Amino acid sequence: MNKIEKLCELMKKDGIDYCLISDPSVIAYYTGDRFMPGERFLCLSVSEDGKLRYYLNLLFQYKKNEIETYWYSDAYSPIDELSKNISGNVALDKNMVSKFVLELMSKNKECHYLEGTVIDEVKAIKDIDEIKKMIASSKLNDRVMEEVAKLIEVGKSEKKLAEEIMAKFKEYGSEAESFSPIVAYHDHAADPHAEPSERVLKEGEAVVVDMGCVLDDYCSDMTRTFFVNKNTEKEIYDIVLKANMTAEKMIKPGIRFRDIDMAARKVIEDAGYGEYFIHRLGHGIGRSVHEPFDVSSTDEVIVKEGMCFSIEPGIYIPGRIGIRIEDLVYVTKDGVEILNHYPKDQEVLKR
Amino acid sequence: MNKIEKLCELMKKDGIDYCLISDPSVIAYYTGDRFMPGERFLCLSVSEDGKLRYYLNLLFQYKKNEIETYWYSDAYSPIDELSKNISGNVALDKNMVSKFVLELMSKNKECHYLEGTVIDEVKAIKDIDEIKKMIASSKLNDRVMEEVAKLIEVGKSEKKLAEEIMAKFKEYGSEAESFSPIVAYHDHAADPHAEPSERVLKEGEAVVVDMGCVLDDYCSDMTRTFFVNKNTEKEIYDIVLKANMTAEKMIKPGIRFRDIDMAARKVIEDAGYGEYFIHRLGHGIGRSVHEPFDVSSTDEVIVKEGMCFSIEPGIYIPGRIGIRIEDLVYVTKDGVEILNHYPKDQEVLKR
Repeated sequence: MNKIEKLCELMKKDGIDYCLISDPSVIAYYTGDRFMPGERFLCLSVSEDGKLRYYLNLLFQYKKNEIETYWYSDAYSPIDELSKNISGNVALDKNMVSKFVLELMSKNKECHYLEGTVIDEVKAIKDIDEIKKMIASSKLNDRVMEEVAKLIEVGKSEKKLAEEIMAKFKEYGSEAESFSPIVAYHDHAADPHAEPSERVLKEGEAVVVDMGCVLDDYCSDMTRTFFVNKNTEKEIYDIVLKANMTAEKMIKPGIRFRDIDMAARKVIEDAGYGEYFIHRLGHGIGRSVHEPFDVSSTDEVIVKEGMCFSIEPGIYIPGRIGIRIEDLVYVTKDGVEILNHYPKDQEVLKR
Repeated sequence: MNKIEKLCELMKKDGIDYCLISDPSVIAYYTGDRFMPGERFLCLSVSEDGKLRYYLNLLFQYKKNEIETYWYSDAYSPIDELSKNISGNVALDKNMVSKFVLELMSKNKECHYLEGTVIDEVKAIKDIDEIKKMIASSKLNDRVMEEVAKLIEVGKSEKKLAEEIMAKFKEYGSEAESFSPIVAYHDHAADPHAEPSERVLKEGEAVVVDMGCVLDDYCSDMTRTFFVNKNTEKEIYDIVLKANMTAEKMIKPGIRFRDIDMAARKVIEDAGYGEYFIHRLGHGIGRSVHEPFDVSSTDEVIVKEGMCFSIEPGIYIPGRIGIRIEDLVYVTKDGVEILNHYPKDQEVLKR
């Protein structure tokens, strides 16, 4: 069954008549066609019986002409035409922007509009070809992490190291970074999303490196925390590592995402640091670095074979320290495979 | 009057009770606060009487605490709280994604939701400080274009030249590119959004360079078309140049955007190439490279002092040639200033 067929099956089950997909990366997933719409309207309409229709600006490149296309120019809105060609329950992809959503709703008031979670449900289950690409992307990320560990040195700024990471990704042949690499030293890393600054590394300080690349369209994402010569926060480090490994070990089809989050959270809570683990345990990943579903304490979704997501517990104590350890995993028939193999117990770098 | 006061004035006029702003660059414009929300919900609520409220994830950095803030964690949705704190006519910024729009609509069915064009109307009129920044950003772009003209040579690939442009922007101190530079040779430039390829330049071919940078938060954007040793498409070039200059000369407060588009379009139509000018004449610009309003044949909006936008006519003949000439302009009290000064009549590069 191809991806569109899988989507239609879910649409039938949920009583959805049309899915409207505007996100270029999601369109590329379903059709293989690549568009760069900028702020212009792009849409793939999928009807419950599998009929496809594009709404494309004349500026977009689409030469295959395999899918029926309504072409529009900058001089008029394509939503007039779209609004006449939908009916019933219409699911919108999660990234369609309000400008178009509201125009559509005002031009077709008969339809019932709902969240297009079915669009993401299909994407969440990776097939063998996709798993292979996820493996290759994380393998490259592992290899670059080896180089990064060599580049860490006392006196180097976070910004400099982040630039070196980007250069390495390029040198090793990735298409792009999955996201701007996070390099944060010691107490600066207490902000999980810290931006690399001019701050320079001192001996004994923690170095949080959160990075990933895009290879063959698929994203990697890994975090390691290093120390030069001495792990000065060994207690915290070991708790985070235990939370990471506890969560990874229990993953298999049939459990809920919330169970995984809660297990890792319990390790940190039992050690007395619960209030310092301030984010969800992980997130889905694939063609985008953040995809449904969340590995969070409230996500009731059940884990299935083929899902890929991150496991990234952290402890963030303002003014003192931030430590995070993250791997990607994919769910097998009866368990889990870890996509990252860069070691987690060799955090002390001898210099 | 500050920016929020201006927004409230427009809200009162249009009968809007709340504006909900989710776009980080728009929030930075109104409050100066910078957030990097990723896919997490970020919102600034502005009530018609000027009351502000943030909805922030615990992961976001906001230390000033000047604006009342509702903090949420990854474990629950902030939309529950938001939906209880709005009423009446609620305007949404154009980039709020459907995932949040639909959740909000389902949790508060009493409100009337509408497009937040007022949010952009305030932004469209630049104050003196902003104009200064727009001038500085375009000045830097002019200077880099001088360097780019020197780098153009027979045998060089589009990709290589695009990489050199990015390196030059960095060297000259810009924060980033406004967008990935477009470098397209001759018939490849017949696609206005062509991506730089491995294609190498031959003598006599056109080189379209469309580039811009971000300086002090404000974007520049300019296109020049060059030829090595000989302009082999002089007729087309001169028509595009005439369209560019005709449009630029007529800009002043009081005319409509459509009048400007139509004047440039008429030059190209009268010369017999109307069917090959396949996009709007220009777009608003500021903190984002594309902002309302469009300079298009259907945009009835009236030009006002302080507006900044692009004028970028082009002729695109598939299989033969693409030529575009673009400047940014800003509207003065009684006329217009062109922000780009890199010459448009010295397109032939002697090598």
